[in-house]
Amino acid sequence: MASIPSSMRAVQLGAYDGKPESIAVVQMPVPRPGAGEVLVRIAAAPVNPSDVAFARGLYGFKKPLPAIPGFEGSGTVVEAGSGMMAGFLKGKRVACHAADPKIAGGTWAEYLVTPASAAVPLRKEVDIEQGATMLVNPMTAWAMVEAARQGRHPAIVQTAAAGALGRMILRLAWKFSIPIINVVRRAEQVELLRGMGAEHVLNSSDGDFDIKLRELCRQLKASIGFDAVAGDMTLRVLRAQPKGSRMLLYGALALAPCQVDPGSLVFEGKRVEGFWLSGWLRDKSLLSKFRIAQQVQKLLANELKTEFQARFPLEEAARGLQQYAANMTAGKILLVP
Amino acid sequence: MASIPSSMRAVQLGAYDGKPESIAVVQMPVPRPGAGEVLVRIAAAPVNPSDVAFARGLYGFKKPLPAIPGFEGSGTVVEAGSGMMAGFLKGKRVACHAADPKIAGGTWAEYLVTPASAAVPLRKEVDIEQGATMLVNPMTAWAMVEAARQGRHPAIVQTAAAGALGRMILRLAWKFSIPIINVVRRAEQVELLRGMGAEHVLNSSDGDFDIKLRELCRQLKASIGFDAVAGDMTLRVLRAQPKGSRMLLYGALALAPCQVDPGSLVFEGKRVEGFWLSGWLRDKSLLSKFRIAQQVQKLLANELKTEFQARFPLEEAARGLQQYAANMTAGKILLVP
Repeated sequence: MASIPSSMRAVQLGAYDGKPESIAVVQMPVPRPGAGEVLVRIAAAPVNPSDVAFARGLYGFKKPLPAIPGFEGSGTVVEAGSGMMAGFLKGKRVACHAADPKIAGGTWAEYLVTPASAAVPLRKEVDIEQGATMLVNPMTAWAMVEAARQGRHPAIVQTAAAGALGRMILRLAWKFSIPIINVVRRAEQVELLRGMGAEHVLNSSDGDFDIKLRELCRQLKASIGFDAVAGDMTLRVLRAQPKGSRMLLYGALALAPCQVDPGSLVFEGKRVEGFWLSGWLRDKSLLSKFRIAQQVQKLLANELKTEFQARFPLEEAARGLQQYAANMTAGKILLVP
Repeated sequence: MASIPSSMRAVQLGAYDGKPESIAVVQMPVPRPGAGEVLVRIAAAPVNPSDVAFARGLYGFKKPLPAIPGFEGSGTVVEAGSGMMAGFLKGKRVACHAADPKIAGGTWAEYLVTPASAAVPLRKEVDIEQGATMLVNPMTAWAMVEAARQGRHPAIVQTAAAGALGRMILRLAWKFSIPIINVVRRAEQVELLRGMGAEHVLNSSDGDFDIKLRELCRQLKASIGFDAVAGDMTLRVLRAQPKGSRMLLYGALALAPCQVDPGSLVFEGKRVEGFWLSGWLRDKSLLSKFRIAQQVQKLLANELKTEFQARFPLEEAARGLQQYAANMTAGKILLVP
């Protein structure tokens, strides 16, 4: 194992204003792991929608400035603090995350200190780049489809279906033979999903969208919904769903409050909740996290595969953020230290 | 027991337009109970907010027109169809309801046929007028405060706190020593609740309302909310509540969709559901309904007492609806056949 240098390069966010000039690469000391922590030499880290929101100060929490962005990545554990789990991880390839206000660092750096519980050993066959994007999208897709399975919902309805996460959810629903209704907002996204083989694709810009959505939701009994849009999309989907349906909100692309029809809640027993991976993981035992990570890794080559549009060095993080924010459907951007 | 006449007077709704001329009193045959049903000679029936909504076509369901309005009332079971429960009720004073699209009749009539499961025998000490208003407001107050107790929520926050139901919830919360934050929208409502002894009363028209609400909700840990307003009130209250909070919507006085902050759902694990008494009761066994009704009746003289502003004959039902809609806080209006 290569020796650990005393200083490293890291991306640094100076202000929560989303401006490129607020992002720079700086030289700083390599952090050292404390009790129960590990030091990961980062191999790759993606730009996610949550990074875009974080840089603009629109995410669910802020870290003290200047902060190192990057909520997930992959690499090798090169040093471990005390503790059994940390020791177990030493020398292993891992996926790791820093999507917690308690974790000071970020993955857009050469090294990251993170609690052992925020790192998952990677299976031999898992590519380090696929591993870098494993904890946000694939785990979220897995967790939400798992909610559909555990709740024995006969079918799923999802918005933002053409996005990277939407397509993972689509393929995972197929794998488990759960019918899924896919809502998109542009004609070319309809084509994209039809080309993948999706049977039920509706364009919310069509004049008869609400009628068709309602018919399909009731026919297939789509009693669980995944919404990444918010605004009036939440209202339209929840209204279309059958009685007793459950809506999981996991994003707010419309940048507007969810609207919800009171009648849907009161007379039809529907309910609206949020889904947040960090919160979901926090409630799991280490063992069940480990098991889930194993299952997700087996699907990384197919159902839960991430596509990349470009690879950038840390020095081009600001450009990566901008390019990704402008075109999320083209694939992830990967930062390679 | 007096003999049953062949015809009766009943209020009849001709259109869902909320116009007084769409409401008339007609003479029609007295209905006869089928298997599992009872015939109730109605003694008194209130005008509720749900009746106002129903007459305007804004309630959760419609009955085929012409329809007899009136979702609850009290009276005496004068005839029973086959079945043990129906037979048990014969000759007894009962509270009864018709708040179900499957029940053809309504309580604004001299007689009502209703399933035995929609009638509750009244205890000796319960006044027939208090019994008439027992199934909607007192049961709803009881059910929601019960949800707070069962969920071990340290405190409650409620909107529309000065209304009849709001005041019942307030008194019931006191009885069970649960701190309660009361939201009203006019200064005189603040006075009204302070006069009753309420400690935490906030006026949503005040400039510092949101800040004060947030402080109080977090200080008292008001992790369950009851909202009868909808619109942006849902958003304001949910945003003020601590993480993991639950919001039960049971009305929509603002006549606007609920707005909900995506961040409240996603990052703070809050959720929004509806509460509807008919649905709640449908999920209970006969035995537990009976037990709950006994507990509620013991509180009808005090915590769950209904106040009346006027008593009208059936012929003045249209006037009763209008007068009640114009001033709900003055007390219920009772129709006495």
